[in-house]
Amino acid sequence: MDDALVIAGRPLGSRLVMGTGGAANLLTLEEALVASGTELTTVALRRVAAPGAGEDAGTWAMLERLGIRALPNTAGCFSVREAVLTAQLGREACGTDWVKLEVVADDVTLLPDVLGLVEAAEILVRDGFTVLPYTTDDPIVARRLEDVGCAAVMPLGAPIGSGLGILNPRNVEAIADAARVPVILDAGIGTASEAALAMELGCDAVLLATAVTRAADPVRMARAMRDAVAAGRGARLAGRIPRREGALASSPTGGRLDLAL
Amino acid sequence: MDDALVIAGRPLGSRLVMGTGGAANLLTLEEALVASGTELTTVALRRVAAPGAGEDAGTWAMLERLGIRALPNTAGCFSVREAVLTAQLGREACGTDWVKLEVVADDVTLLPDVLGLVEAAEILVRDGFTVLPYTTDDPIVARRLEDVGCAAVMPLGAPIGSGLGILNPRNVEAIADAARVPVILDAGIGTASEAALAMELGCDAVLLATAVTRAADPVRMARAMRDAVAAGRGARLAGRIPRREGALASSPTGGRLDLAL
Amino acid sequence: MDDALVIAGRPLGSRLVMGTGGAANLLTLEEALVASGTELTTVALRRVAAPGAGEDAGTWAMLERLGIRALPNTAGCFSVREAVLTAQLGREACGTDWVKLEVVADDVTLLPDVLGLVEAAEILVRDGFTVLPYTTDDPIVARRLEDVGCAAVMPLGAPIGSGLGILNPRNVEAIADAARVPVILDAGIGTASEAALAMELGCDAVLLATAVTRAADPVRMARAMRDAVAAGRGARLAGRIPRREGALASSPTGGRLDLAL
Amino acid sequence: MDDALVIAGRPLGSRLVMGTGGAANLLTLEEALVASGTELTTVALRRVAAPGAGEDAGTWAMLERLGIRALPNTAGCFSVREAVLTAQLGREACGTDWVKLEVVADDVTLLPDVLGLVEAAEILVRDGFTVLPYTTDDPIVARRLEDVGCAAVMPLGAPIGSGLGILNPRNVEAIADAARVPVILDAGIGTASEAALAMELGCDAVLLATAVTRAADPVRMARAMRDAVAAGRGARLAGRIPRREGALASSPTGGRLDLAL
Repeated sequence: MDDALVIAGRPLGSRLVMGTGGAANLLTLEEALVASGTELTTVALRRVAAPGAGEDAGTWAMLERLGIRALPNTAGCFSVREAVLTAQLGREACGTDWVKLEVVADDVTLLPDVLGLVEAAEILVRDGFTVLPYTTDDPIVARRLEDVGCAAVMPLGAPIGSGLGILNPRNVEAIADAARVPVILDAGIGTASEAALAMELGCDAVLLATAVTRAADPVRMARAMRDAVAAGRGARLAGRIPRREGALASSPTGGRLDLAL
Repeated sequence: MDDALVIAGRPLGSRLVMGTGGAANLLTLEEALVASGTELTTVALRRVAAPGAGEDAGTWAMLERLGIRALPNTAGCFSVREAVLTAQLGREACGTDWVKLEVVADDVTLLPDVLGLVEAAEILVRDGFTVLPYTTDDPIVARRLEDVGCAAVMPLGAPIGSGLGILNPRNVEAIADAARVPVILDAGIGTASEAALAMELGCDAVLLATAVTRAADPVRMARAMRDAVAAGRGARLAGRIPRREGALASSPTGGRLDLAL
Repeated sequence: MDDALVIAGRPLGSRLVMGTGGAANLLTLEEALVASGTELTTVALRRVAAPGAGEDAGTWAMLERLGIRALPNTAGCFSVREAVLTAQLGREACGTDWVKLEVVADDVTLLPDVLGLVEAAEILVRDGFTVLPYTTDDPIVARRLEDVGCAAVMPLGAPIGSGLGILNPRNVEAIADAARVPVILDAGIGTASEAALAMELGCDAVLLATAVTRAADPVRMARAMRDAVAAGRGARLAGRIPRREGALASSPTGGRLDLAL
Repeated sequence: MDDALVIAGRPLGSRLVMGTGGAANLLTLEEALVASGTELTTVALRRVAAPGAGEDAGTWAMLERLGIRALPNTAGCFSVREAVLTAQLGREACGTDWVKLEVVADDVTLLPDVLGLVEAAEILVRDGFTVLPYTTDDPIVARRLEDVGCAAVMPLGAPIGSGLGILNPRNVEAIADAARVPVILDAGIGTASEAALAMELGCDAVLLATAVTRAADPVRMARAMRDAVAAGRGARLAGRIPRREGALASSPTGGRLDLAL
């Protein structure tokens, strides 16, 4: 754990944060979570807190058994009030003050409503929560979330579940360059190379759900994502070669054979 | 080795082919090769065959010691005749009939001369060589190289040493879709996500040199590339989710809390 | 003017909005404005309102002479209060209640501070202004600006003066698809094809300054931008062919010559 | 015609070359050709030369009436022999030694077979033809076509009829930078911004058919393409601003209002 991700003082050995949404069944989900190596996994508060939510109680128990920290989220909340109340009820039900804060604008785009998000984040930080907000790729909003005391910022790569990757890499890089808290790329990842790219842009971790849970072979994809995050992190730390417009020979042409051509 | 790459009947446990050009010194090169997990590494024939080429003799011996198969290349050859003669002299000197065939157009662009390449490939195949040609991303030329008997095709992603990645992913994917011999993405890779992408597009392996040897930390980058190739291969086999223009909720919004909003 | 752009009830014959910043001298600026065909041009309120600002008084008089409507902007305002006050002072000085509203986060990124922007827009709309806000490419913020009564929304393509084009075309298209007020692509345009693309994505107009004023030949570039906006608007209305992954022959191969091949 | 395109000594006032394939009917085609301003239009030799090809005889007569030079092409030819014979029969039938040379690999990809293309080009040049070859975006093949005496080179942007634009702008730019004969971007263009981009990359002209003939409104799209080519040419000659990673204020922030903030 010499390159641990530290969020709000807590070290995590894996830089892959998983979501549980979209899983076909608990057994496959469990295998995929194990294969991913994750130590932090989101669970929807709406489902956890609902009475008689058998499957979700199962998710909760499974995470505990696997030693994976649960990160409750406020998915499905469309207003500041709804998100704040959901977080507060969830804290009691789940026994954790960590929350992945989502205030989405509508159920079609599922895009963050950044105005509501900043407001809800301020309220929850003051209320003692460790807030990890799901936000857009706007560097100024990311800075503001940090300023109001969020423990991390989680910009999207592309709309939730779209699998379009990182639509604006420059914005994500600008967020990562400026942030003093961990930056977790959240939403949009469809395949391994995109998770690696997120890390190369300077993100500290990647959060994904659909890309694994809805892949044809979720367990294999979970392993691929684990490798991709390690690869991207390694490449970032290793210092890549510069991009050049022209070619550069890797095999020196000195020492040529003396062919009579 | 249940997902081995097989070239000309020979299985290889790693899908990362390394080059040796650009290495600062033999010791770092050795560490990087070990970290990469490669089982096949290119060496420039011009250097190997040159008299008194002490360092290159060292490279050759090192590969033998590490159990890595050497793949001689004809780097620096600008004509059919030069490439064919270099390959033939190299076969005697190196004791292998495998050759990475390069016929480059000039020493500025280092781009393949595909007309000379096809001609040289035909000659060498007839002469008993196992030919792996370095070519452009032209799907029709790739097919032709396969038709004349090449054991693999090695399209470029971008100019040698440029680190620009894969400039035309559609062409690389078209080559991989159509090929009945292994496709090895060669040239252009600058960082881990690009190596992963090559595999996701359907390539069977990735060849790179500069991206590792000239990275700030070559050993760490070698490990990142090993992980990236595994990640891309895994993601390809796992069956990624489709790209969608719109969002798709991963957390069902059923089971809502009954908040009096 | 059968395809006129209408903003706040006022028709404009040209869909190219120009800025005056960065011009080397008034004479070249005048020639460029005429060549562009623009009917609406931004002027910085800070400069207009400053005492003894000779050059800017010249700009103002020139626009009047050319029959080009001036659109005062609040460039250089970093807070809600500053932007609102500047707009109010400018209204008296300039005799127009139209304002291009800028609330930028800092003088390095020059990115919009969308939280401050929405707040300032609300205040100015209530105060009787016709507000055209410079914003990010966030579709939800654009909708909010429309909801508070803005007469248009002006999303960026890329940072001001960067010449990087449109970094996230999907977002710009989403804004244009959803908007019921005119959408004017503002900031980032570097060359003609990018202005055409903005129109093809569904924008109603394009605003640019640096791309013309700092080009090697501003007058020629102004003419190119005029043509580009017309081209992009025409292509949008003409209904482009769909993108296809494969080829489609345009020359039917029926009626072949009967060559004895 | 102070910025005329000159091919084989012949000046052309328009830099838009049109194709006739895919047109719904002759009348719309005629209107579109007129709207495009083209002075050079391709016609398939296979159709022209076929006996009793009434519609195509009509095309031929129409071009003559409009004063548009006809450029016969060898579309549908899959071998050197077929292309050469078609060109030779066409020369007699059409009374022109200009030929757009196509040697395509197969009727699925419609991609150029560059090996056959270079061979056929050499034969036809020696036979007195003015050869304009349809080729890939391979800079080395383009140079070779120029070396064997072609009067222009016509690289593709993307597969014929795909509407995917220019898949590898760097290659197209490299071809344009190096060429001493006119470079005409051929195939792939789907909309106006892509035609403008081709010119900005340094191409001397753009050839397109499907993008106009199959658009919902071909005449309007023809006009848009005319404007786009003019815009791209103008922007190229005007000298665009450099791309910058960061922002650059166009409105100087000097001369600030003295607000008591």
